[in-house]
Amino acid sequence: MNKGFFIESRDTSSLARTGVLKTAHGDVKTPVFCPVGSQASVKTLTPEEVTATGAEMILCNTYHLYLRPGIDLVKTMGGLHRFMGWQGPILTDSGGFQIFSLSSLAKITDEGVTFRSHIDGSKHFMTPEDIIFYQQSLGSDIMMVLDDVPPHDGNPARIARAVSRTTAWAKRCLEARTSQTQQLFGIVQGATSPELRVKSAADLAQMDFDGFAIGGLSLGEDKQTTWEMLDLTIPLMPALKPRYLMGVGSPEDLVESVSRGVDIFDSVLPTRVARNGGLYTTEGRINIRNSAFKNLDRPVEEGCSCYTCKNFSAAYVAHLFRSGELLGLRLASIHNIHFLQNLMGQIRNSIRSGNFIQFKTAFLARYRAVDEEVRQQQKQKWLASKPGSNQAD
Amino acid sequence: MNKGFFIESRDTSSLARTGVLKTAHGDVKTPVFCPVGSQASVKTLTPEEVTATGAEMILCNTYHLYLRPGIDLVKTMGGLHRFMGWQGPILTDSGGFQIFSLSSLAKITDEGVTFRSHIDGSKHFMTPEDIIFYQQSLGSDIMMVLDDVPPHDGNPARIARAVSRTTAWAKRCLEARTSQTQQLFGIVQGATSPELRVKSAADLAQMDFDGFAIGGLSLGEDKQTTWEMLDLTIPLMPALKPRYLMGVGSPEDLVESVSRGVDIFDSVLPTRVARNGGLYTTEGRINIRNSAFKNLDRPVEEGCSCYTCKNFSAAYVAHLFRSGELLGLRLASIHNIHFLQNLMGQIRNSIRSGNFIQFKTAFLARYRAVDEEVRQQQKQKWLASKPGSNQAD
Repeated sequence: MNKGFFIESRDTSSLARTGVLKTAHGDVKTPVFCPVGSQASVKTLTPEEVTATGAEMILCNTYHLYLRPGIDLVKTMGGLHRFMGWQGPILTDSGGFQIFSLSSLAKITDEGVTFRSHIDGSKHFMTPEDIIFYQQSLGSDIMMVLDDVPPHDGNPARIARAVSRTTAWAKRCLEARTSQTQQLFGIVQGATSPELRVKSAADLAQMDFDGFAIGGLSLGEDKQTTWEMLDLTIPLMPALKPRYLMGVGSPEDLVESVSRGVDIFDSVLPTRVARNGGLYTTEGRINIRNSAFKNLDRPVEEGCSCYTCKNFSAAYVAHLFRSGELLGLRLASIHNIHFLQNLMGQIRNSIRSGNFIQFKTAFLARYRAVDEEVRQQQKQKWLASKPGSNQAD
Repeated sequence: MNKGFFIESRDTSSLARTGVLKTAHGDVKTPVFCPVGSQASVKTLTPEEVTATGAEMILCNTYHLYLRPGIDLVKTMGGLHRFMGWQGPILTDSGGFQIFSLSSLAKITDEGVTFRSHIDGSKHFMTPEDIIFYQQSLGSDIMMVLDDVPPHDGNPARIARAVSRTTAWAKRCLEARTSQTQQLFGIVQGATSPELRVKSAADLAQMDFDGFAIGGLSLGEDKQTTWEMLDLTIPLMPALKPRYLMGVGSPEDLVESVSRGVDIFDSVLPTRVARNGGLYTTEGRINIRNSAFKNLDRPVEEGCSCYTCKNFSAAYVAHLFRSGELLGLRLASIHNIHFLQNLMGQIRNSIRSGNFIQFKTAFLARYRAVDEEVRQQQKQKWLASKPGSNQAD
């Protein structure tokens, strides 16, 4: 049996749990964090380097690959795994979010979505069935349904329509799926409306998906709202199926979300902040351009077992950033992904040994999260900077 | 004895020879090509990746490291080898060429040179003695004297002054050197003047350098002139000392220069053209953005044993370039440096086995060099684009 989800242990004072997600390209220990390689490359890194961080599954993006290099090309090259040289499990996002956020003129009907490429302005039309066909051609291990992703502060009628449409499309995706080796996940939407989140989750829970995702969160709403939506949604999702919170990846959010019952995460955050000089430490995120690191003859994080910290001083990484040397972006990306993989490993161990809550409390007490106001500013700045291929992930 | 040069074999129909250059950080088989890491990083690559290409020695730049991160900082961090994590031999260029080409307002007197940083415009003064002191602090294995590098088309009086000054400075560098483990090379100048090249080489040959370099060539003069200057100079240089042709690195030029008696090369060319999508093959340099590679389910070069060709199709490398993915720059850089290391290995083998001339003829017959006019245009465009830190190497 190379497909399915098996829960191995449960925390008794939270919804946290550990498990194994079995895929055609290997097993994945959950809770898991997936680095993102939207365009078939985890930015700046080779597959071996991604593996060396401890990552077991990565995420690629159907929207990006459809536009460039094209689904047919990837299929001709033997599928996505062979094309990019990654032999482990791959989760492909459907591109619903990217169509609405990156492309211009996204026009949606019940039939499907018309949009213009953010690369060359060319016009495209896609149905939920197309998206399944594309993901089957890519050969990913976990496919996502096409969802309708309205702005988180959209008007209630628009959000309600998006929820019913996402549910209707989810059903069509299930029916269109012919591959038996690839898993298919539904996506709960509903923006920040408690009623719509509940409706979306309850409706999708009736369908025979291999797992369930929560989409449309962490897009500008405050943290309290994010957790509220999660707490409303999780109990309505099938308890024995994997739960995937899309696009969430800051260390503190991972810890919080696991305690709320999430099994799978992906985010561009560790690699994106890395390329801007932001590096995770157990004390919080530092910026390597800070003058404190200029002369520091110690690793970025003492005791860290990543390639960067084992081989180079913070001063050298700082020099690379100040000099515009691309190796700096690599070393920072390696460190951040390794940090999150290490964190997920600690989370899994603490769940198994029954002290997850103690771990969570200790971690959050020590880890100084980025100030909420700064975080929102950075997020909005990033969202506003799209469309643009540099913002692909 | 961890310092010195030992000739192992000589070609009978040319000046080509093989040898071993012994340094405090290991032996180097010559003829050797050194990848360039001006700012203490071979652009985009880790030390392990550079080693995997077969490279035994790299070049760093005193001018760049003096400006950023600073000589004292590198010294405090335990020297250049430890700072950048490269345990093999390092040759440091003095920065003479960079001072005259990158910085603005370079003002030269017999005492030394005053210039403004290309990074922040700050004013600096350096003597030949300073340059030796800096390189001793960096701890490189081979140090270069400070030279006066006039434009190749400068007026005869200016070039004549530059030659006498370079000779006078060379003597001061020799006297200033206190390190016994680091080697020091003199630099022959003279632009494209046969008389001045001869004078420069003859004068320097009287001095007790560990090796002799030829500088100020391949800077815009035509190829015939380059070879003419080389042919005039080489016979005047001590036959038992290593000969280093600075800044030359195209495959066809390496082959031609070895036959003229050169032992050591460095050039930014393989990594710079790589970042522009130019990849070496035995047939010539291709551009990976060419549509022919978009669907090519074969390595960039069939049979190539580099990491890139062993693991990825040309189509994937092409996709990375078209998508702006930095991994593409890495894969191209690895391929090109590996190509040159492989070429140097073939050159050494053919010299040892007495068929260098056959190898040279066969290689040049097959390798289609970049058209001379295009080459000059690219070179002038590059030279004109300076100063700028992105053009550092």
